[in-house]
Amino acid sequence: MSLRIPYEIVKETIKKALLQAGLTEEQAEACAQVHAQSSADGVESHGLNRVPRFVDYIRRGWVNPEGKLELKGAKGAVENYDGHLGIGVLNGLFCADRAVELAKAHGIGCVTLRNTTHWMRGGTYAWRMAQAGYAGICWINTESCMPLWGSDEQSVGNNPFCIGLPREKGPVVLDMAMSQYAYGKLGVYRLAGRKLPYPGGYDQEGNLTTDPGAIEQTRRILPMGYWKGSAMALALDLAAAMLANGNTGSEMDAIGMGSCGSCCQVFIAFDPYLFGTKEEIQEKMERRIEAAHGSHPEREGGRILYPGERTIADRARSMEEGVSVDEQIWRQVCALAEGKDGEGIQ
Amino acid sequence: MSLRIPYEIVKETIKKALLQAGLTEEQAEACAQVHAQSSADGVESHGLNRVPRFVDYIRRGWVNPEGKLELKGAKGAVENYDGHLGIGVLNGLFCADRAVELAKAHGIGCVTLRNTTHWMRGGTYAWRMAQAGYAGICWINTESCMPLWGSDEQSVGNNPFCIGLPREKGPVVLDMAMSQYAYGKLGVYRLAGRKLPYPGGYDQEGNLTTDPGAIEQTRRILPMGYWKGSAMALALDLAAAMLANGNTGSEMDAIGMGSCGSCCQVFIAFDPYLFGTKEEIQEKMERRIEAAHGSHPEREGGRILYPGERTIADRARSMEEGVSVDEQIWRQVCALAEGKDGEGIQ
Repeated sequence: MSLRIPYEIVKETIKKALLQAGLTEEQAEACAQVHAQSSADGVESHGLNRVPRFVDYIRRGWVNPEGKLELKGAKGAVENYDGHLGIGVLNGLFCADRAVELAKAHGIGCVTLRNTTHWMRGGTYAWRMAQAGYAGICWINTESCMPLWGSDEQSVGNNPFCIGLPREKGPVVLDMAMSQYAYGKLGVYRLAGRKLPYPGGYDQEGNLTTDPGAIEQTRRILPMGYWKGSAMALALDLAAAMLANGNTGSEMDAIGMGSCGSCCQVFIAFDPYLFGTKEEIQEKMERRIEAAHGSHPEREGGRILYPGERTIADRARSMEEGVSVDEQIWRQVCALAEGKDGEGIQ
Repeated sequence: MSLRIPYEIVKETIKKALLQAGLTEEQAEACAQVHAQSSADGVESHGLNRVPRFVDYIRRGWVNPEGKLELKGAKGAVENYDGHLGIGVLNGLFCADRAVELAKAHGIGCVTLRNTTHWMRGGTYAWRMAQAGYAGICWINTESCMPLWGSDEQSVGNNPFCIGLPREKGPVVLDMAMSQYAYGKLGVYRLAGRKLPYPGGYDQEGNLTTDPGAIEQTRRILPMGYWKGSAMALALDLAAAMLANGNTGSEMDAIGMGSCGSCCQVFIAFDPYLFGTKEEIQEKMERRIEAAHGSHPEREGGRILYPGERTIADRARSMEEGVSVDEQIWRQVCALAEGKDGEGIQ
């Protein structure tokens, strides 16, 4: 069952849970904001729902709150950091901000990060760059959680890839994992007794299926676009590891520190107003978005959305009516906030 | 029917056709190399097969062989050019090379190009950057040829996106349009009387179908990964137009100069050996690729390929046995080379 809880209460409760887990006041405040914002934006899977697992990772030593970012090298518009297994969200925010600073000086800026931990919702960093007025691209490599095309075992990460574009009426943000569905989404459908709208993986017999439970059993989730998502996932993995001089997905598999433990991330920021005025570039975007909105809907009354458009509406509703939370997970996080061990941590 | 013709003959014949169309010796040589190489690499659709249409576009004035690249602005690691509707392939090669030069100076380099024409095979530029020893990302926005998710009319481009990574045993190259299948591929299946292996679009009744002819009729091709490819296509369109201060896909629709007429392109090059030695980065890639090759195949004896791997094999076979060409298109291009009007130009 889902409840709606005021944003400030969600944020403060997460913050208390993170303080209990040993984060400093400043760390807990910043992380709580990001987790609460993700839930408010309709991305519960990487918002509130990840708090128990994050706390668990700290206990296991897979995330080290004392791990400090270290500048490993720099040339021109590029910097490289070692995250020392510090808090993924804070490392990611720092690097997104550094990419923007580098772009201010060089027109484009690139920060590569190795040996960091889960950044939670990838869109956070694309939003961050876009809200600073910069176009941004970022991606991450993860441990293997999806079969490469032609394989039946988990052999590549789902390696989310994000694009953020500044826009006065709210940024355009693509936040896209390379699997057709996240495991979290399969669970949501299974619990609701529903089939997936489109095939999301393979069953025991090796057939494509819309049965979420069957896919959870085989763990053969489908790359988006079949061979395409598989190829892009492998290219993103190699590119991240190469540019950051960090671990590839298969090296992370060998290290085995949970989801995204010791991963790489790449953040690229572009000054979007170098070759046109802000006014003309923003008008161009508006015209394109109007054309998208105006394209003929498949179903009468249907609305064509740009990437990130739903987020704005979800956020507004969350601020007005409260943030949607899963009751069971909410109780877990409240228990963590009170210093009790969360039971049945996911 | 397909024939195999020696590479040099394919290249020289294309060159003659392009000289007949009014290109200079130097232009014709460079373009013929790229078209012949694409066919040799197994990408006939954008190699030999595009020559008649390219010649047609020159005649229509949609491509202006005298259009010269003009530097419109520069800041730090970024340059912006106006392509003045010049030859897309030559504009693209120049910009890919400039991105590499900028990366030499700044660690990363970005060139944005507006008002250019079809670059043919996107992978050409990712290969170019990778063969220069640089990691590269490039993409293009095109006129609308695919419905946005939720729409039943062509409302976004298929906006190919490419990643190239240098590798001593042959680069890793992702070259991926945002549609699940290209129109060219639908035609190949229809002519062979075959169904698509996976649904590729919608039929007249609005149902997903594997019947290539039905999709050609509705022109409702499917974005890769359904909503995902649609969202990424729109984000790439907006990003290209924004960064290059050029046309969006819907502006190209209004201009109506064929495929990719007056489009934008973005080229980003990264020095991959800034933060690790070439030896250690290359070894890291090899280990990752070995892990991919070693992942358990779905079918006994199956082989898991990295992006671009098939190209190497296709290229080797083409150099040994000749380049595979469609007999009818080959005759068209031979006629163009002899100064005769190609009949039934595609």
